[in-house]
Amino acid sequence: MSGRSDDITRIEPASSDRPPVLAISMGDPTGIGPEVTVKAIAIARERGELGRDFRVRVFGDGPMLGLLADELGFADLFADENLDAGGFNRAGVSLVHGAAPVRDAADGALARAGLSSSLYVQRAIESVKLGIASGGASLGRGGVDVADRVSDAMVTAPISKEAWNAAGVDFPGHTELLAERFDSPKSGMLFVGPSLRVILASIHIPLRDVAEKLTSWKVQTAIELGERACREMGVVRPRVAVAGINPHAGENGLFGDEDERIVKPAVERAREAGMDVRGPVPGDAVFLQALKGEHDLVVAMYHDQGLIPVKIVDRERTVNATVGLAWEGRRVIRTSPAHGTANDIAGKNIADATSMMEAMRLAVKMWRAGRG
Amino acid sequence: MSGRSDDITRIEPASSDRPPVLAISMGDPTGIGPEVTVKAIAIARERGELGRDFRVRVFGDGPMLGLLADELGFADLFADENLDAGGFNRAGVSLVHGAAPVRDAADGALARAGLSSSLYVQRAIESVKLGIASGGASLGRGGVDVADRVSDAMVTAPISKEAWNAAGVDFPGHTELLAERFDSPKSGMLFVGPSLRVILASIHIPLRDVAEKLTSWKVQTAIELGERACREMGVVRPRVAVAGINPHAGENGLFGDEDERIVKPAVERAREAGMDVRGPVPGDAVFLQALKGEHDLVVAMYHDQGLIPVKIVDRERTVNATVGLAWEGRRVIRTSPAHGTANDIAGKNIADATSMMEAMRLAVKMWRAGRG
Repeated sequence: MSGRSDDITRIEPASSDRPPVLAISMGDPTGIGPEVTVKAIAIARERGELGRDFRVRVFGDGPMLGLLADELGFADLFADENLDAGGFNRAGVSLVHGAAPVRDAADGALARAGLSSSLYVQRAIESVKLGIASGGASLGRGGVDVADRVSDAMVTAPISKEAWNAAGVDFPGHTELLAERFDSPKSGMLFVGPSLRVILASIHIPLRDVAEKLTSWKVQTAIELGERACREMGVVRPRVAVAGINPHAGENGLFGDEDERIVKPAVERAREAGMDVRGPVPGDAVFLQALKGEHDLVVAMYHDQGLIPVKIVDRERTVNATVGLAWEGRRVIRTSPAHGTANDIAGKNIADATSMMEAMRLAVKMWRAGRG
Repeated sequence: MSGRSDDITRIEPASSDRPPVLAISMGDPTGIGPEVTVKAIAIARERGELGRDFRVRVFGDGPMLGLLADELGFADLFADENLDAGGFNRAGVSLVHGAAPVRDAADGALARAGLSSSLYVQRAIESVKLGIASGGASLGRGGVDVADRVSDAMVTAPISKEAWNAAGVDFPGHTELLAERFDSPKSGMLFVGPSLRVILASIHIPLRDVAEKLTSWKVQTAIELGERACREMGVVRPRVAVAGINPHAGENGLFGDEDERIVKPAVERAREAGMDVRGPVPGDAVFLQALKGEHDLVVAMYHDQGLIPVKIVDRERTVNATVGLAWEGRRVIRTSPAHGTANDIAGKNIADATSMMEAMRLAVKMWRAGRG
């Protein structure tokens, strides 16, 4: 594909700067998040990237991570007395331990898991905010890691939305929580794989509400955020295609008027702003066109429309990035693997850490682009 | 994939019966339908299948088809004085000419195109009904083709829904027209490709109406029709997966209750009837599972959910079959290419006839299975 590298997260040679610190939340403790976290860090070390290209500050359950690392044969990853003090061990790993307290017997395991994983994410958020406030973890101060809670970018392992709900967390998922905590209502969910880039105009809402809740403003925001992210990833003039809401993009009004009423005006305004945008293109045509190299980005109208092709085509190499997040005027980088908690295979040591590893590499790449 | 042949429409050696007659409607005259019709017939002749495995009775604009065949270098395909009398020429082709009359100046080109293509389909339908009433075109009567309008199965080239609407045709597309004409309300749209089989529980309705209009009965019908069609295609015990309606199949009720309320009961009833069915499986997971060989059939809840993966994965090799059609107690076979009229490339002689040709071969295969 034009303008694409097969290696989606090829990392340029390290600069003379200190490597960035990635805040990594280990995700739901009953899912595969802890496992892919440990595995991805181990792979990064094996490739020589950990320590050289980035360091990691892991937010999670310390004993659980240590035990997992033992079981997986990477005992030293979380070993070092420095860990407890917020420092990095020789591998380039720091650990911020935490687990939700058992408040009373009525707390189910589900709620505790949800509370824990939401705490990890919120601490990772604070760590990145502190990083922005202090000028960045990677800059250091006279070579000393004074900031023992400071990070430069976030990578989040999967949480369970059901567990968050049981724990009373007021957000359906990461994306919504991040948008609120960083006060960034114009954020969006972008999926990046070797063959497809897809951004969603709506996310975790029932299908029956999609047509009702979508607005031209939301579609236009998704176009703008996705287009800018593509430029930040090196596409000089991104060719953007917007998928239709209805079958056949409404076939000229025969199957719903939303494509005329909502999508078309958004496409026109983006064009007026100088972007290379077309649409609405029928959902069952636009992704094949993108695979053939006609589009650099597809703007999907709802969850399954965008996620079905992403998961089929790029599979475990797909990475999710939240775009449009900012704090104190600085861009916030957050990536995550595109898979869920996969509880059915948790604890079996068979989870594939490719997406988690690619999420870490994409975060580093985006962080570097932001400093260029 | 288990139980799958890479050649989706491998035709067994011809029996001693006469080959079946396929009623082929040439589709919208301004689209690529006539071109892929001529090309597919030419390919079938080149492969030695035309005449040996099946004959074709083409419903369309005679002069247009003749001209097209000339241009494409297959002048003899539609040449023969027998054609005008409803007989077959040496190649195995019969032609039923027709074009919509220009009633008055208010008839636009769009409406005339719609009227013409709807006439072709309706005549093809009558031809198949006559075939059923008379015991089948392929049986002949003492070796003589007495039935000059009789066919055994239907293959329809693409029509324009917009043109049908302009012409006042009361049906959004082929599928709905066929369901009415054959008095078969329990029919469904099945897509068959080398890697995926997908049946739709709803088709040409606005996205906003999907959750409202879907019922357990409709989902159950789609399961049953698809499961039976798979068995007819040679899968001994089809493993069926039903996609969820909402993101993450509703994630236990967090994003809409339709998966619990509509999909689950349908799956349970199909299981009680002895079928191997699971679901609801999240839309963004179920197709990858099918590609990995875990399911023989996916039941998709709405148009784009099913068509997006089908078009990406199997591309021009995908064939559409209407399942569940019957007349006078006999099964009616109807297949079609999975693409549309593609007006942007019509008249350029660049249309790919693979899907049309595979549609013809699948119709023959299903016809033979029905006689086994």
